[in-house]
Amino acid sequence: MDWPPSPDRSFASDNAAGAHPAVLEAVAAANVGSALAYGADRWTSECEDAFRDLLGDVTTLLTVTGTGANILALGSLLGPVDAVVCSANAHINVDETGAPERILGTKLIDLPAPDGKLRPEQIDELAHYLGVPHHAQPAVVSITQSTELGTVYTADEVADLCDTAHRLGMTVHMDGARIANAAAALGGDVATLRSFTIDAGVDVLCFGGTKNGLLGGEAVVYLRPELARRAMYLRKQVNQLASKMRFVAAQFLALLTDDLWLQLAGHANAMATDLYAATSGLDGVDHGAPPQVNSLFPALDAALIEPLRDWTFFYDWEPARRQVRWMTAWDTTPHDVGQFAAGVRAAVSDGTSGEN
Amino acid sequence: MDWPPSPDRSFASDNAAGAHPAVLEAVAAANVGSALAYGADRWTSECEDAFRDLLGDVTTLLTVTGTGANILALGSLLGPVDAVVCSANAHINVDETGAPERILGTKLIDLPAPDGKLRPEQIDELAHYLGVPHHAQPAVVSITQSTELGTVYTADEVADLCDTAHRLGMTVHMDGARIANAAAALGGDVATLRSFTIDAGVDVLCFGGTKNGLLGGEAVVYLRPELARRAMYLRKQVNQLASKMRFVAAQFLALLTDDLWLQLAGHANAMATDLYAATSGLDGVDHGAPPQVNSLFPALDAALIEPLRDWTFFYDWEPARRQVRWMTAWDTTPHDVGQFAAGVRAAVSDGTSGEN
Amino acid sequence: MDWPPSPDRSFASDNAAGAHPAVLEAVAAANVGSALAYGADRWTSECEDAFRDLLGDVTTLLTVTGTGANILALGSLLGPVDAVVCSANAHINVDETGAPERILGTKLIDLPAPDGKLRPEQIDELAHYLGVPHHAQPAVVSITQSTELGTVYTADEVADLCDTAHRLGMTVHMDGARIANAAAALGGDVATLRSFTIDAGVDVLCFGGTKNGLLGGEAVVYLRPELARRAMYLRKQVNQLASKMRFVAAQFLALLTDDLWLQLAGHANAMATDLYAATSGLDGVDHGAPPQVNSLFPALDAALIEPLRDWTFFYDWEPARRQVRWMTAWDTTPHDVGQFAAGVRAAVSDGTSGEN
Amino acid sequence: MDWPPSPDRSFASDNAAGAHPAVLEAVAAANVGSALAYGADRWTSECEDAFRDLLGDVTTLLTVTGTGANILALGSLLGPVDAVVCSANAHINVDETGAPERILGTKLIDLPAPDGKLRPEQIDELAHYLGVPHHAQPAVVSITQSTELGTVYTADEVADLCDTAHRLGMTVHMDGARIANAAAALGGDVATLRSFTIDAGVDVLCFGGTKNGLLGGEAVVYLRPELARRAMYLRKQVNQLASKMRFVAAQFLALLTDDLWLQLAGHANAMATDLYAATSGLDGVDHGAPPQVNSLFPALDAALIEPLRDWTFFYDWEPARRQVRWMTAWDTTPHDVGQFAAGVRAAVSDGTSGEN
Repeated sequence: MDWPPSPDRSFASDNAAGAHPAVLEAVAAANVGSALAYGADRWTSECEDAFRDLLGDVTTLLTVTGTGANILALGSLLGPVDAVVCSANAHINVDETGAPERILGTKLIDLPAPDGKLRPEQIDELAHYLGVPHHAQPAVVSITQSTELGTVYTADEVADLCDTAHRLGMTVHMDGARIANAAAALGGDVATLRSFTIDAGVDVLCFGGTKNGLLGGEAVVYLRPELARRAMYLRKQVNQLASKMRFVAAQFLALLTDDLWLQLAGHANAMATDLYAATSGLDGVDHGAPPQVNSLFPALDAALIEPLRDWTFFYDWEPARRQVRWMTAWDTTPHDVGQFAAGVRAAVSDGTSGEN
Repeated sequence: MDWPPSPDRSFASDNAAGAHPAVLEAVAAANVGSALAYGADRWTSECEDAFRDLLGDVTTLLTVTGTGANILALGSLLGPVDAVVCSANAHINVDETGAPERILGTKLIDLPAPDGKLRPEQIDELAHYLGVPHHAQPAVVSITQSTELGTVYTADEVADLCDTAHRLGMTVHMDGARIANAAAALGGDVATLRSFTIDAGVDVLCFGGTKNGLLGGEAVVYLRPELARRAMYLRKQVNQLASKMRFVAAQFLALLTDDLWLQLAGHANAMATDLYAATSGLDGVDHGAPPQVNSLFPALDAALIEPLRDWTFFYDWEPARRQVRWMTAWDTTPHDVGQFAAGVRAAVSDGTSGEN
Repeated sequence: MDWPPSPDRSFASDNAAGAHPAVLEAVAAANVGSALAYGADRWTSECEDAFRDLLGDVTTLLTVTGTGANILALGSLLGPVDAVVCSANAHINVDETGAPERILGTKLIDLPAPDGKLRPEQIDELAHYLGVPHHAQPAVVSITQSTELGTVYTADEVADLCDTAHRLGMTVHMDGARIANAAAALGGDVATLRSFTIDAGVDVLCFGGTKNGLLGGEAVVYLRPELARRAMYLRKQVNQLASKMRFVAAQFLALLTDDLWLQLAGHANAMATDLYAATSGLDGVDHGAPPQVNSLFPALDAALIEPLRDWTFFYDWEPARRQVRWMTAWDTTPHDVGQFAAGVRAAVSDGTSGEN
Repeated sequence: MDWPPSPDRSFASDNAAGAHPAVLEAVAAANVGSALAYGADRWTSECEDAFRDLLGDVTTLLTVTGTGANILALGSLLGPVDAVVCSANAHINVDETGAPERILGTKLIDLPAPDGKLRPEQIDELAHYLGVPHHAQPAVVSITQSTELGTVYTADEVADLCDTAHRLGMTVHMDGARIANAAAALGGDVATLRSFTIDAGVDVLCFGGTKNGLLGGEAVVYLRPELARRAMYLRKQVNQLASKMRFVAAQFLALLTDDLWLQLAGHANAMATDLYAATSGLDGVDHGAPPQVNSLFPALDAALIEPLRDWTFFYDWEPARRQVRWMTAWDTTPHDVGQFAAGVRAAVSDGTSGEN
């Protein structure tokens, strides 16, 4: 069978997308004259206000990478003998090259979470570590919203985790590299965002920007501002203080204006839903449940993977299960979805006809 | 006396300047469609080539902050019991919030350097530490070019330091946050850059971009590529792997095209020279030697500092000596210099007349 | 039922035992006049020789705590982005308060090991992490011999793990806090020790002393001496360089003389076997397999635990399964075993009769 | 000239001395039956009481090395962005192989102190670092009593430093590896010890044992017990939790009984005074002021050093100034002093006669 042209945009990751035009325009608009470095500029100040409008009485520090945001957030919560509890597949556990251990000196206690989500009873089971000098002391529960597996915690689930953590004297960090996708999936408005963050009891939130249309930028939002007491020092120490901060702030201001962050994430989610529909029921494409956010994790017949990947790149997820990951982004178009689905059908057709 | 309007651009720091238009254009031009994240894009590849054109057979990794660049560079050179030798006023020693100690776990051995420059004999004097298990082992000499005090090492001076360090089994790191200003000052061409870096024996170089017209971006250039063996992992671990790397690379490509980096730095240097001339000989303004790069460190009469700072902000340098720092940048105009000098004269006039 | 007197010696841990008389005598004998500190004394030199007699061409550094020994050993093997692979119940993972993460900045990748033993295929499954910059790089396989669960690796099992690790470019650390018990269990002579350490390909070994009759002291034995290149510095840096080293060395010399280490461990093992026999078949005492070394992990009826513990202390192991740990030591006597078994029978009798 | 026999005991360091007989006896006496590990034994409990008798309402944790004691103490006082202020010649700065930087991730701000003693105004000068995010935040002042240069702080001097530190929000750590020598020098009773520690405002004290007659053991005494909140975890994490703790505690109990610690240190100090007298006025032996504690730092004629060192070993102090260090210890006898002085005279005589 003839293969269609490969899609104009990648389905490898939402990191492969560029920046939204409004973001670039905001950067250009901020490039006027001088502005004091390190955040002593009006864009940064306005950005802090914008996060207060969004989430209430919070303190926000901008960072330049997602790993950096997590490190700053966790570092604000940890004492020397403290440990972070997270899921086994958490980004901080498997995709940050050991940054928490190296920079913060902290132990990660990683718990099994087949759907990417921790459960309160898993936290409770660690209570017997508390008070015993031989064990690193569980001090922070870190959850990812939406998770690395494309699932989302409901507001109630987050609240239950927070209650458990707080009851044990622990705090809760939310890695929200894709928080906008979760907010879009769970309701699509600001109230939804609040429901599973500040209202649920999360202590510190990493609010992702890069994957949702920025050139690059993340925000660490201290939902309990007193936790930010040493954050301005710590941000510099962990390599995350941008000198020309106005350009990070201007990007976020664009993203937070008129709920652009929700629109972009909602669009990415919708494209994933469309892709799921367009590729379901094909031989050799074993989808699980429909996507909650902007990622699909199909298991593919072995014969399909390489031809399809040669045609347009995507990543393996669990090679042993022939599971791959397809992601949509803020800039994925229906036409891209159509092209990609056509390619999948071509691969299936080749595979079935034995031509591969 | 009536004060003139304050200058359009700040003299507080070269960090207060925005981005050069060519840099912004390059970012916009790179914002087309998808590109794989983390450097697997064509801009990053071209940028690596551009650094090879500039400096020879080198390996280059881009980072997002200057502290991050230094940490990556030093981290590539250090084993667990190793120490970094630097000047007491080195940026890594006093202006990075202890990042080397925290992230790398290394000791800094800071030596007096009244003009910002280390001397080979200071390195030799540390030789008796080598081989003694009670002492952190001096392993890296870190120098800053141009220095934090606005001075520059000659190529011979760098070569002598490198020879001494290498003879003792140590390596040399150059913090080149303002390397372009040094290159412009010492000759203004690529051969000059090479003379005090790769030709002089420097092992790893941080080539600054942010202070010289980028939105934000630095380059760690391994002049001995074998030292980069673990750098791609280390960059991620120290929070410096930008996901949308193309936008950092595109900025550097613009800067390295047609020697823009040299033009911008040369201009900044020239503006500092003009400012020196325009403010010399005034009562209460005690300049030292003429500037070598883009910074002046005058000692001011106590009565001058606050009125002048209220009019346009600048930083103290050594408060005890009433020394301040004035910096020019790539975007400083002769008109800015004129305005600033007029303000200095107004302050002096007020101070002299006792009106202040 | 009347309870017997509680045993003269504790079954809580082999750490609860004192020092063997020969060890104390050796310390007293070394307390003559002056000896240069930090290992420049003849006892230390003789101790290094003794380990060469035992294990071949090795380099040995003595330390003062078991956690310290592991940290020194692992620290000698790790680069900045490296991770340690270990079992989930490894002492370094759960009983050292996060020391590896804090002091070495390393990630621990902990793998399930229901019997305390890693399998080569578990190491192979981590191969896909190698070369990917987002993952800490698996670099060291750490195994415990005998394990935290009282099992032992055969020489072949260790060799298979070493082969796998070395094939992937990794090294192997053996935490031998109870290595003597393993050697006694597997053959009881020096050739046995060699078979599962240097002959099997282990790179660095922690040879435990404290649990086997010393006042306190451990030995890090570099079976590949080139790995000790920076160890003398690292030992001081990680707080493990005793100043009056002769007193640590003298203890080890006593332990290594006339195979005292094997005799003491063999005796402890035999006592555990006796205790197993004496407490098997009792209602409410659910032993698993007979002990391989000097620990038993019975599951007890809920009603038994507290009365028995009040009578003589021991630790919970897995509270959820009502599993406890009973340990024998070098100084446990047959009479102690008889007393302890009598107490268990008394508890069972009380439990059965409903008197508890 | 004929040389006398070299002395029976070393003048190289007080670390070269053995243990006091009472200490060995206490260890032997504690070696009876079982005792729970990690400090849950009666000797440790009694030792904690003994320190309360000595210093008031304090919390004491025993450690196994001096570097470890300093690391535990400092680690209890430091947050992530904090720095330690110390003298340039502080043991933590030059003789602990960078342990504070590596284990604690902290910066050391080392200040010149020609006589080994910090001054309050040096602390005040660092106040401008406070609140600036680019600087590691001075948080702990660490002083050594007696100092590495053999000097002692008076109680008033310590109090002034503590007042300054506390006024700036900082705490004070005292490295008392040789605190007994200072107490003996300043008054020789317990009241003296209190005057320059708890009464002067010191927050955490490392009370040295090893150099004053123990086999090995140090005590971290939290003079403000609330600072010990996480210390029991931290001690394990930094490799300093001895499992058979009773043997460390028993040593300290012996030392604290009947003021043995003061007697031993007072004797060592007296021997240094005698040695000073016996070697003053000799050609080529340039003593400074008389010793305050148990160390002499004479500058020697170049021709004297090697012959004398070959006869009995001692360390260089500042080679550039031909300065060496001679130390006495608790076990130095008048006869040893006489022998050593005779050797010095022999070296001088040889040097003068040109026979060397």
